[in-house]
Amino acid sequence: MMTDIAAAFLAAKKKYDKGGNALAETLSVGALCLETLHRSATLRRFGMFSGPPKIEYWVAEDGGALSRPYRPDLFIADLNTFREEARDFAEELRLGKSDPARFDRVVYTTVSAFCLCFDVWKPKSRKTPGTFFEVLMASAARVRFPKLAMTKHIPIKDIPVAATADALLDVTGDERDAAETFTGDSVSTDLVLTNPETGKGAVVPLKITTRERIVQPFAHQRILDSAYPGQFASFLACISEVQRDDNTGTVKQICVPGTVALFQKHLSKLNGLYYCDIPVRYARPDLGSVIEVKPLHLLFEDMAAHVG
Amino acid sequence: MMTDIAAAFLAAKKKYDKGGNALAETLSVGALCLETLHRSATLRRFGMFSGPPKIEYWVAEDGGALSRPYRPDLFIADLNTFREEARDFAEELRLGKSDPARFDRVVYTTVSAFCLCFDVWKPKSRKTPGTFFEVLMASAARVRFPKLAMTKHIPIKDIPVAATADALLDVTGDERDAAETFTGDSVSTDLVLTNPETGKGAVVPLKITTRERIVQPFAHQRILDSAYPGQFASFLACISEVQRDDNTGTVKQICVPGTVALFQKHLSKLNGLYYCDIPVRYARPDLGSVIEVKPLHLLFEDMAAHVG
Repeated sequence: MMTDIAAAFLAAKKKYDKGGNALAETLSVGALCLETLHRSATLRRFGMFSGPPKIEYWVAEDGGALSRPYRPDLFIADLNTFREEARDFAEELRLGKSDPARFDRVVYTTVSAFCLCFDVWKPKSRKTPGTFFEVLMASAARVRFPKLAMTKHIPIKDIPVAATADALLDVTGDERDAAETFTGDSVSTDLVLTNPETGKGAVVPLKITTRERIVQPFAHQRILDSAYPGQFASFLACISEVQRDDNTGTVKQICVPGTVALFQKHLSKLNGLYYCDIPVRYARPDLGSVIEVKPLHLLFEDMAAHVG
Repeated sequence: MMTDIAAAFLAAKKKYDKGGNALAETLSVGALCLETLHRSATLRRFGMFSGPPKIEYWVAEDGGALSRPYRPDLFIADLNTFREEARDFAEELRLGKSDPARFDRVVYTTVSAFCLCFDVWKPKSRKTPGTFFEVLMASAARVRFPKLAMTKHIPIKDIPVAATADALLDVTGDERDAAETFTGDSVSTDLVLTNPETGKGAVVPLKITTRERIVQPFAHQRILDSAYPGQFASFLACISEVQRDDNTGTVKQICVPGTVALFQKHLSKLNGLYYCDIPVRYARPDLGSVIEVKPLHLLFEDMAAHVG
């Protein structure tokens, strides 16, 4: 089931890792996932987020395996419609002007279709969906910002300790995921776009959901504030924060507004949180007065405003 | 095999959670683990840390299950000797004056014996050894510092977001572990000792090994520096950073000196790192010029010096 999808993504990733833009390829992987879901899985209603407001969520299911929940109102289920929207999305990025709803829906559908396939048919590949999200968004950024320099690392100078000794090679799985973001002589994140003329940079951690890793972008930003005062701003880009509750047949939005506010006030200031499916709790004004929480389609505009 | 050990630890933890000192009980659990290892497991040489200097490590083994590596030169293998040393250790704590080698060896043996049993016979209980280390050290601190106030949380005021909404109840396992350390309106760690007279506090994260969680104590300290300037200092207390390499039959010390130096320089300053089995890489002077790395028996003295 997953052989074609995995091979197509691997080819896209190889192109991206060599410095290419794999936007068309990742959108095609999304279409392939959508096609596979229609052919081999059942897409069906799962239950409601209790709200207010109440929000309906669906899942993909095959052979008893259930996917994460997704929002059918943001998900472009029809394959031909998705292909058209994806083509227009890519074209608009080239022109530097995106339709807001299309941007959010195409990214949400592409990433969700990929996640649903992996949830149902390859649940042990926990890190692959996150990598896919990264390749998609970084490729879109390459199309949108051809003049900006793109990297994943920001060097930090004058650390008087040999970083080659940072041996986490034997650490596995999630531990390695978390450890990789710090390598001693640099801050490593998913995407950094820098304007060579102004020297300003946008740091974009890309997380399908944040969960317990929410501390990382704040710690990164704090280190950058210390090492490069005023130069870098962080834009945390996510898909959603949802989780099935199988006991009650409802969907939970896993939110830590107090923690986010605590970090924003006392650890460092992020420029904003960006979501396709904004958690209801994060949209409330008490948190909004501390940190901006916005739809994902504003990400690129806000990045452009920062880097100049 | 583990029923008695788990029951004895549960009783100790209940006493500790009610505000009692469970030092005698945790030391007894250590003796019970040691007895069980001698009766039902094989304690044998595993291999060397490649150095320099080379260090020999042993493991516990039963039915093909291997434990983490431990240092036989720090481990009091003889049951009667351990009981005597543990008794003297507790008595010295009451008098406020510990023999350095005894302190390190008794803590190392108690915690390691518990870990070895869980590694071999109950490997899925990943969090229990960390809780045991916490109950042991916090109980020892209660005996050593009867006049200090002890807690696990430091309230952070003026966070304008209802913290009761921090719903991570559905998050499981390690995710929950990491998420629990931040609850929105407070910084939560393993042990905080405060002098009511000076208002100064010692924050003591207790981690058997740090691995990817090394960012947490630095983020905590940064938040405390912001919310309570000059009042709190952090003392990161660990057992070791070792891991078996089954391919080569050697032991690795998993170290991230560049990351530690980066955090210490640009995120916040910890008062020091304390280990029973100090990683060789962390003992080198390049890291020592950035952050103090010391044997565990100096922890209580350094805490006392800070809180006044």
